[in-house]
Order: sequence, then C-alpha cells, then structure tokens
Amino acid sequence: MTDLGALGEFGLIERIVARLGDAAARDILVPPGDDAAAWRNRGAVTVATTDALVEGVHWRTVVSGADAPTMSWADAGWRAIASNVSDIAAMGAMPDFALVSAVLGPSVDLEALDHLVEGMAAACREHGVRIAGGDVDRGSQTVLAVTLLGHSEGGTLLRRNMGRLDDAVAVSGHPGMSAGGLALLEAGRGTEPAHAALLQAHRRPRARVELGRAALDASVRCGIDVSDGLLQDLGHIAEASRIGIEVDIERLPLHPAATAAFGRARAIELALGGGEDYELAVTGPDERLRALSSASVPVTIVGRVVAGHPGEAWALDANGRRHLPRSAGWDHFPPVEAAP
Amino acid sequence: MTDLGALGEFGLIERIVARLGDAAARDILVPPGDDAAAWRNRGAVTVATTDALVEGVHWRTVVSGADAPTMSWADAGWRAIASNVSDIAAMGAMPDFALVSAVLGPSVDLEALDHLVEGMAAACREHGVRIAGGDVDRGSQTVLAVTLLGHSEGGTLLRRNMGRLDDAVAVSGHPGMSAGGLALLEAGRGTEPAHAALLQAHRRPRARVELGRAALDASVRCGIDVSDGLLQDLGHIAEASRIGIEVDIERLPLHPAATAAFGRARAIELALGGGEDYELAVTGPDERLRALSSASVPVTIVGRVVAGHPGEAWALDANGRRHLPRSAGWDHFPPVEAAP
Repeated sequence: MTDLGALGEFGLIERIVARLGDAAARDILVPPGDDAAAWRNRGAVTVATTDALVEGVHWRTVVSGADAPTMSWADAGWRAIASNVSDIAAMGAMPDFALVSAVLGPSVDLEALDHLVEGMAAACREHGVRIAGGDVDRGSQTVLAVTLLGHSEGGTLLRRNMGRLDDAVAVSGHPGMSAGGLALLEAGRGTEPAHAALLQAHRRPRARVELGRAALDASVRCGIDVSDGLLQDLGHIAEASRIGIEVDIERLPLHPAATAAFGRARAIELALGGGEDYELAVTGPDERLRALSSASVPVTIVGRVVAGHPGEAWALDANGRRHLPRSAGWDHFPPVEAAP
Repeated sequence: MTDLGALGEFGLIERIVARLGDAAARDILVPPGDDAAAWRNRGAVTVATTDALVEGVHWRTVVSGADAPTMSWADAGWRAIASNVSDIAAMGAMPDFALVSAVLGPSVDLEALDHLVEGMAAACREHGVRIAGGDVDRGSQTVLAVTLLGHSEGGTLLRRNMGRLDDAVAVSGHPGMSAGGLALLEAGRGTEPAHAALLQAHRRPRARVELGRAALDASVRCGIDVSDGLLQDLGHIAEASRIGIEVDIERLPLHPAATAAFGRARAIELALGGGEDYELAVTGPDERLRALSSASVPVTIVGRVVAGHPGEAWALDANGRRHLPRSAGWDHFPPVEAAP
C-alpha cells in the first residue's frame, strides 16, 4: 500500500492529470493548473449539474464487516462521471467538461487512486467529456463530487414540467438492472456468469446522451433520468407538470437476466423502484416516442399522462390496483386503493 | 437536535432552496429543481473552479477531543463559497453561479443545516453569486464541495504563467491574518476583543473580485489567490512563468493586530506561510500595481521578479538570507543559503 502523502498535494495532482491522458482538457483557454479553468462558450446556453458519490453509501470498494465490495475503484470513478453526464443527457444537452472534487479516505492508496482516475478517464472518453479542473483533499470517507458542464445550441431543453395530458410515457433500456446487480452482490450472488449484464449495469452505467438529443430533435420536450427509481422519477415529472402518470406493470421492459435471477414479481419491483439506472424517461405523443428506439437502446412505452391525481405517478397492476412509490422503493407498501 | 431524516431528501432540498432566499438563482433558464440548471451565457468565456471544504480538516464546528470549534456552521458555509469565488477573482473574471454538493455528517442537525445555508447565502450576496443547483447526501464526515462558474467578457484573464522579468510583485490586504486567527483559536485565545480582525479574516474571508477586475483593466496579466500561503502561491507563479520571485521581508504588510498578538517575528512567518487568506498576489510594472490600492483594500509591493532560481519564490530577510517555502509553512525550515 503506497501512501499518498509522499507525493504531496501538487505531486498528486500532476500524477492525476498525467494519468487522465486525453480525458484531461489540455487545449482549452486555461487548462488544469491555474486558479480556475476557462473555455470559450459552446452554444448559447450553459447546462450544469453536480452530484456526489459517497463511499459506503453509493459504493463499497473494500470489505466492510460482513459486506463484500460492490465494485472496483475504477467502477466508482466511472459512475461518478456517468451519473453526472446522465443529468446533462436528461436535459437533451451535450456534455463538455467535468470538475472533480475528490476527498480521499484512508482506504485510498496510490494504486486505488490510479484505478479511480482510470475509471473516470474511461467514462469521460465514452461520453465525450474532458476533465477541466479539480481539487484533492484527504478525509475520513471518500467522496467524489463531480460537476458536469454542458451546452445547448439554441436553449431548448428537456424539462420535467412539460408533461401534457394524453402524452405517452416511455423509458429507455431496462430499468431495475442496476438495482438488480446490487441485490445480487449483496446476496453474495455476484459471480455467476448469467448475471454479468446486471452487474455491468450497476458498475458501468452508460448515460443516454444521444437519446436525449434525439428526443429533442423529435420535438419531445419532457424528460428526466431514472436515478431514483422509475416511479419516483416519473413522480417528479408529475409534480412539476401537475399531471398524473400511470404506468402499466404489464408493459415494463423487464430484462431477461433480471427475470431469470429474481423471478417476475421481484423483477417488476426492481423495475419500478430500483434507482441508479441512468436510463431516460420521457413523455410526448405516442408516435414520437416510438420513433426513439435505436439499435443501441430500446425505448418502450410503459404508460400515459392522465388527468386524475395530479402530482402523482403510480403503477397499475393486472388486477387494476394502484401502487404508489415510496422513497425506499414502491414495493415496501401495499396498494393504496382500487383504480378508478 | 432535529434529525434531517424526517424531512427526506426532497423536503431537505426544498427547505434549503427556500432559506437561500434571493441567493437561489430562480430566474435563470432552468432554476434549481430539474435534472440540471441552465442559463444563457454571460460573456464569451466560461471560467470554472471547484474546491471542497472538509470538516475536521478545514474547520471544526464541534468540540473534538481537547479541540474547541474554530467557527460556526454559518462561517463554514461562508468560506465554502468565498474560497471558490476567490479562484474566479484570481482570474480577473466575474463570478455568476455556484453548484453545491453537500455531504452532511452526523454533527449536522436541522439547526446546523439552516445556519450553514444562511452563511452560504450571505457569502453569495456579498460576492454577487447565486446558487443554481446542488446535491445533498449523508456521510460520516461533512464535506462542502462547491463549483463556481463565472465569465470573462473578452477572454483576457489573469494567469499564473504571465510573470515577466523585472515585474514588481504585490499582494492585497494583510496576508497571514487568517492563519493568525486560527492560531489564536487553537491556543484558546479566541475571545479577546483585540483579536477580532484576525478571527474575522479566518471565518469570513472576502474574495477580491473587484481587485481582480481592476488589475485586468490596468493591463496587469499575472495573478493568483493566496490560499496556500504567500510564498507557496508565488512559487506557483514562479514555476508556471519560469522566473524567480524574491519577497522583501521588510516590505510585508503586517497587520497591527497580528504584530500585537504574536510579535513581529511570528507575524512575518504567518504572512509568508499562512494560507486561506484569499488575498490576490499579482506581478506587473511597478506603477500599474501601485495604482491598484483602493479604499477597500491596500495593495502593497513586496518584491520583484528576478532572473535567478527560475521556478522558485523566496523571502529575503534583513541579513540577506534566502528562505524557501515548504508545504507546511516556510518557518519549519532554516534558510537554505546566503543570498547571491
């Protein structure tokens, strides 16, 4: 275990920038190494988001009591970038630059740091992002606080408050896979080859930048990324748009690996309540949403905007019963009422 | 002690945005509450920096063993904003928006959070900044990771690599005051009225936005903020500009409160090695630097750029001896050699 202290703060930063390779923004107006970074504006509008990943909360890289690690340092670095790119994608904007404040806990030695940086660099390359600046501190718990800056050419964006009555509601990919991967890891079932897709979804989620752009190009105006769980995130649209959103459980795009690993009932729970998928949920005219499916990611219509229960999103089961989400996942609570 | 859990994540965010008052950016293209914030670009160039403050490293708000608190939650919130604004000021740019990733440790109850937000809001108002977005998590240690976005009209900026031979070197205010305030607190001398200015410098530093702009307007092109200590930060200029920088100890603008509290020798050590002052250090033609002094902040010429020892900054004492900085403060090491 190589201690970081020997390098000193500035030695550490030099090493990080060197290992970022072409993921470091070296050719901007002011590259890393001055008081602040600077770049000529792209597009008319700046889009900006920040999201922190906390060791022990969002991931475990070392054994903690009886709990095995959930991912590698490289995975944690990847996710810190991808989760932020996802918020830019959910606006229909293009990601440009990341700033990273890293608080390194005692479990981070030099090898761990190198892997962390490699994972960040890989996610940057995958999503067309470069790191323009950052800050490194020591602490008692590792925190990766990333800010992602992007742009929009004209200023039109996917918003949460643009859901309209009679819109269809669609989601990309197979929500619930990340939560499924985590559930397998927590149950000590992380090594079976049949589960690889679920583990990959948890450890290396890919943000849907192209889909966000394609949605805007297709005149879709309402979207969100599925980071808190499908029903809960649709609830954010419902609240911001003052509409109701009804999801048909029968139409959920369950992934075969999830159904195989957990059975259908639990796969449904994961799809409705599992977070951190970084898929996009959008609302708009049915035919526009259908046209968004691509070779790289399916887009499935799962529900509709309705007049009743403004501010709420719920799932309708085969018996016509309504299930509301809860912050801990929709499945922890019984149905609230029979559907009207 | 009111627990934060009762509010839930979204209740917490609503409360924070409400308490930010006019420090929240409510009238931008996409205000807080969507996947990302968005605003129409100001100026041609975006300037961006990130800096994290870690509880127990950068401040103590609660008693820790034998150690008394160094500042209030409101002070910590203020400093998290001001330290980032300072990096924008050091580019000669104008600060616009902040994004805040807050990891709240167990010592943060609802009252502490309210005070933290009030301190951030006060610093935002003082520096003309508004908070455009953020993220809140729980953790075992409080971390305030702030990203500050600003702009430059034409793209001309104060750089570290623009120091030139025969430039004069100047610093604003009275460097060492913040470290002096902290030293008093650590020694249990924080309650004496004569020390108020030093404590204020530590707890409520003001970033030098107007000075950075004025320097650029006066065709000064080289600057940095004094966050690591005067000699160390001048060393960053020396390294980036491939020049030597010599500081005359006799010309240091010692604050009377520092001299009174510590005596002249220790006040000099603090001025050369003490960090977190958020004053600006600039290099340029003597007469241009002299003209930067204003009613609100003095600017003092303390040294010059020389041809010898490129990449180094040092202090010259009354006996002609050269003192180099060290990361832990210049005073921990003896002089390296007689001056040439």
